[in-house]
Amino acid sequence: MASTVEGGDTALLPEFPRGPLDAYRARASFSWKELALFTEGEGMLRFKKTIFSALENDPLFARSPGADLSLEKYRELNFLRCKRIFEYDFLSVEDMFKSPLKVPALIQCLGMYDSSLAAKYLLHSLVFGSAVYSSGSERHLTYIQKIFRMEIFGCFALTELSHGSNTKAIRTTAHYDPATEEFIIHSPDFEAAKFWVGNMGKTATHAVVFAKLCVPGDQCHGLHPFIVQIRDPKTLLPMPGVMVGDIGKKLGQNGLDNGFAMFHKVRVPRQSLLNRMGDVTPEGTYVSPFKDVRQRFGASLGSLSSGRVSIVSLAILNLKLAVAIALRFSATRRQFGPTEEEEIPVLEYPMQQWRLLPYLAAVYALDHFSKSLFLDLVELQRGLASGDRSARQAELGREIHALASASKPLASWTTQQGIQECREACGGHGYLAMNRLGVLRDDNDPNCTYEGDNNILLQQTSNYLLGLLAHQVHDGACFRSPLKSVDFLDAYPGILDQKFEVSSVADCLDSAVALAAYKWLVCYLLRETYQKLNQEKRSGSSDFEARNKCQLYKNLWGAVLQESKVLERASWWPEFSVNKPVIGSLKSKL
Amino acid sequence: MASTVEGGDTALLPEFPRGPLDAYRARASFSWKELALFTEGEGMLRFKKTIFSALENDPLFARSPGADLSLEKYRELNFLRCKRIFEYDFLSVEDMFKSPLKVPALIQCLGMYDSSLAAKYLLHSLVFGSAVYSSGSERHLTYIQKIFRMEIFGCFALTELSHGSNTKAIRTTAHYDPATEEFIIHSPDFEAAKFWVGNMGKTATHAVVFAKLCVPGDQCHGLHPFIVQIRDPKTLLPMPGVMVGDIGKKLGQNGLDNGFAMFHKVRVPRQSLLNRMGDVTPEGTYVSPFKDVRQRFGASLGSLSSGRVSIVSLAILNLKLAVAIALRFSATRRQFGPTEEEEIPVLEYPMQQWRLLPYLAAVYALDHFSKSLFLDLVELQRGLASGDRSARQAELGREIHALASASKPLASWTTQQGIQECREACGGHGYLAMNRLGVLRDDNDPNCTYEGDNNILLQQTSNYLLGLLAHQVHDGACFRSPLKSVDFLDAYPGILDQKFEVSSVADCLDSAVALAAYKWLVCYLLRETYQKLNQEKRSGSSDFEARNKCQLYKNLWGAVLQESKVLERASWWPEFSVNKPVIGSLKSKL
Repeated sequence: MASTVEGGDTALLPEFPRGPLDAYRARASFSWKELALFTEGEGMLRFKKTIFSALENDPLFARSPGADLSLEKYRELNFLRCKRIFEYDFLSVEDMFKSPLKVPALIQCLGMYDSSLAAKYLLHSLVFGSAVYSSGSERHLTYIQKIFRMEIFGCFALTELSHGSNTKAIRTTAHYDPATEEFIIHSPDFEAAKFWVGNMGKTATHAVVFAKLCVPGDQCHGLHPFIVQIRDPKTLLPMPGVMVGDIGKKLGQNGLDNGFAMFHKVRVPRQSLLNRMGDVTPEGTYVSPFKDVRQRFGASLGSLSSGRVSIVSLAILNLKLAVAIALRFSATRRQFGPTEEEEIPVLEYPMQQWRLLPYLAAVYALDHFSKSLFLDLVELQRGLASGDRSARQAELGREIHALASASKPLASWTTQQGIQECREACGGHGYLAMNRLGVLRDDNDPNCTYEGDNNILLQQTSNYLLGLLAHQVHDGACFRSPLKSVDFLDAYPGILDQKFEVSSVADCLDSAVALAAYKWLVCYLLRETYQKLNQEKRSGSSDFEARNKCQLYKNLWGAVLQESKVLERASWWPEFSVNKPVIGSLKSKL
Repeated sequence: MASTVEGGDTALLPEFPRGPLDAYRARASFSWKELALFTEGEGMLRFKKTIFSALENDPLFARSPGADLSLEKYRELNFLRCKRIFEYDFLSVEDMFKSPLKVPALIQCLGMYDSSLAAKYLLHSLVFGSAVYSSGSERHLTYIQKIFRMEIFGCFALTELSHGSNTKAIRTTAHYDPATEEFIIHSPDFEAAKFWVGNMGKTATHAVVFAKLCVPGDQCHGLHPFIVQIRDPKTLLPMPGVMVGDIGKKLGQNGLDNGFAMFHKVRVPRQSLLNRMGDVTPEGTYVSPFKDVRQRFGASLGSLSSGRVSIVSLAILNLKLAVAIALRFSATRRQFGPTEEEEIPVLEYPMQQWRLLPYLAAVYALDHFSKSLFLDLVELQRGLASGDRSARQAELGREIHALASASKPLASWTTQQGIQECREACGGHGYLAMNRLGVLRDDNDPNCTYEGDNNILLQQTSNYLLGLLAHQVHDGACFRSPLKSVDFLDAYPGILDQKFEVSSVADCLDSAVALAAYKWLVCYLLRETYQKLNQEKRSGSSDFEARNKCQLYKNLWGAVLQESKVLERASWWPEFSVNKPVIGSLKSKL
């Protein structure tokens, strides 16, 4: 493989065009081509190059950064571009199964072009498509083909105007009528309107609608997904009983048409229920293949994780772009210098390095982590698809839910802060729209919110860990999880007796030192939270009150745990984790 | 005055309309009307109400939040609105001198309507107008009238495409030609084009252009301001030799037309030089009323401070709006609750309070601080206007420069982070354009950059303090400054011997505790930086290198110093500084 690089597959990794960055590039202590091959692999580089070349050569994707595009025009263009991406068929369903990492790679390429395009494509093919595929059964396979041919266009309708985080309070209903073998989808009032649904504003023909499933005799079985046609695919006019529209301009991602919908007693066939978790017989009896409610919940959590894991990728691509823009600008922008005549690039200032380089490191660490988390998710989804109802599968669902719930906040917040720093580090020019940092920041922002507000999500992770600790305390259970992410806690509370014994700054560069510190901190915060929670309960607080009063603690360590996880995985990748890329030693591996 | 409130001047402070916030408002432990009167005073409240009522009733100011306005249309509207503000004549020049605090109050009111409007008005009347007034002399008074009648429209052209922070590297030249008694304004190349200049893009007819003043014999005397006509006021066509245009879309403030200009040997009369700091005789001899270069520099610094002090106000108004929006939303948005049926407002969650309430406190502290700093600036400007060339006046210029250089970063960064927190704390609804948090964030962003990048500005403050310390070490001088902001440093390094002896959380609520901690930290960072700087110099670093290597230290404590300053001034205002508004005890003062 090394020969491919040195022999010069110049079509894959051509030299950079000559320009003001030459001087810095010539000073690099490593070969960027070898680094690219090491981090991505040749096959992935070829895949990405295919996508970028197609977009570069297609006039539909031509654009002028900073252009003043109207909302309507932008949404229209984005839809046409999304359609064209399906026509290019960069990634067949077969490829997806064979090389699952190509899925986030495709999304990242589209997102590097425009977040709105990535979101639109992702919401249709992966969020809507995956929901149908993983929550449905054989009778829904007919939709999958239509999805990939873009004969129907989909959206995922969970959030309502008044309820997002609290999914239990979602109020859309689906009453089963045995007389006609139909479900009646209904929005009781405006506050129960589906809201914020990406693709729903202008373009979706079908929606996976989450509604409370009720069978005759007023037995309700909680939220279930239904596939509901909301528009005529030919005219895009709403279906009878469906009031659907666009929710208007947003801070960013304005190429994406977020929408609302109210359902007025809309009747859909019994088969519209995506019935993997639970089904209704023609006569109106509710049946579920999961005997254990805990298992069913674990499995459904797993499918919710897919959106969050994708968001980790979406966030990182924004940070990649921002850091590249800011570093290149800093290498060419000259300001002040040792003499009045000689100015030096602002990248030479320790301050500028201190501001930007940690985010460059974060990009590499998070990018690597997001890929490994994605592969874990694939394992979970394969188990779901094959009908695996083992205890391990349910545990894996819970663990990935906990990991994804903390990864999304870490990636989206790091990116948010990183883009802001890049924007400011480029001074006035960073504020010019054509330099793109504003768009990146605005487009990244919803990553902090959708699929669960970051602060709320972190509580999911801490609830998971508190649950494991309670299990240990009361039942003597070990800390064990399928991906081993919590196994180190088996040494709790012993880890708390460890002391920090590093004496030199140089020793701190060993990632094991930081990792040990993180582990200590997780244990410390776990102990404090557990004690505070129990103390609150003993002093008469309800579970609800007690949890609220511990929120701050819980969130702190949810975040800490996740950083330690990223660091740990980065340390599996030794040459790059300690900031000294010893490329020479890598050659044997390439 | 109390009777005015209790008797109910309902026109000034009418009751809030009934609505979902009633329950929370009824629970307040203090009267909001008394608080408003205490913080603003009745006269100021009336002044603000006059402005808001005029805008509310004028169709030119009607708007729909989140509307999709084209760049051209928005800039046109903003210009017309700016013109209308002058027609309303809310604040006469006489009023300005009598009640200087009405100046930032007017800017805040306009900014609460739209930051682009405040910026456009401010740049013309205060930045351009003040530059002409305070840098010019009697022969320029004719411009002042035209400015306030908006017969001419102005901009302040200092920054160039390649140089902002490093003003010494500004390359526009003004060569004096005694033959015609003219200056020849010239941009040597595109990188020396004036750039980012607010109002220059579409609408300015005149610019205060900073250029290197050179007299025959190639004697150059550094940057001086010239008033240069750039467009015909009737047609808005560029003047001969001037290439001027709009720099395009920005992240925010798109109602403001930022522009560029290149001058090709543009001849302006000798009298165009704003000659308070230095002048050229008809024969071409450079003369300056300042014998001491240090005094001249101090005085010119003072005039640069005016923009930065205004930015403190501009930032705070954004935070005011964001905090009000987020708190009101949080008080009405219900999510989760002790039972599945009963949901509670998200404001009840300790997490939400922890996220938002510190920013509410910051608004009050910073607002109070910004007013007092503005009054200090007025004192400085009065001295400048009256031709005060005393050592005290120069010292005041330097002190206000140091204060403003740290206040702008503190206010703009606190606001940046606060708006982001408010945006996220409102969840998805915070991302909808009509809810305004995005616009506030985008419009606030340049406050971190213009009139000096925040990080660079903090170095100005630290250079000031390091200079004072060197003066003490070498000459035995006391730490004394006209506004006494550095006087506490006279106890340096003794302060470093103090220990933290507070034992209870309750005692920490005493603002004196936090203030003492800040003072200690300033002294600590001052010592560390001073030692590091000297150590660098001893080990052979040039001044330039040594300063660079200490940048991080210097910036840290520049920020710390400023927070302590805000806290100190807030503590002059005792009832509100410790988060327990004892309104009862205030009545005697009202």
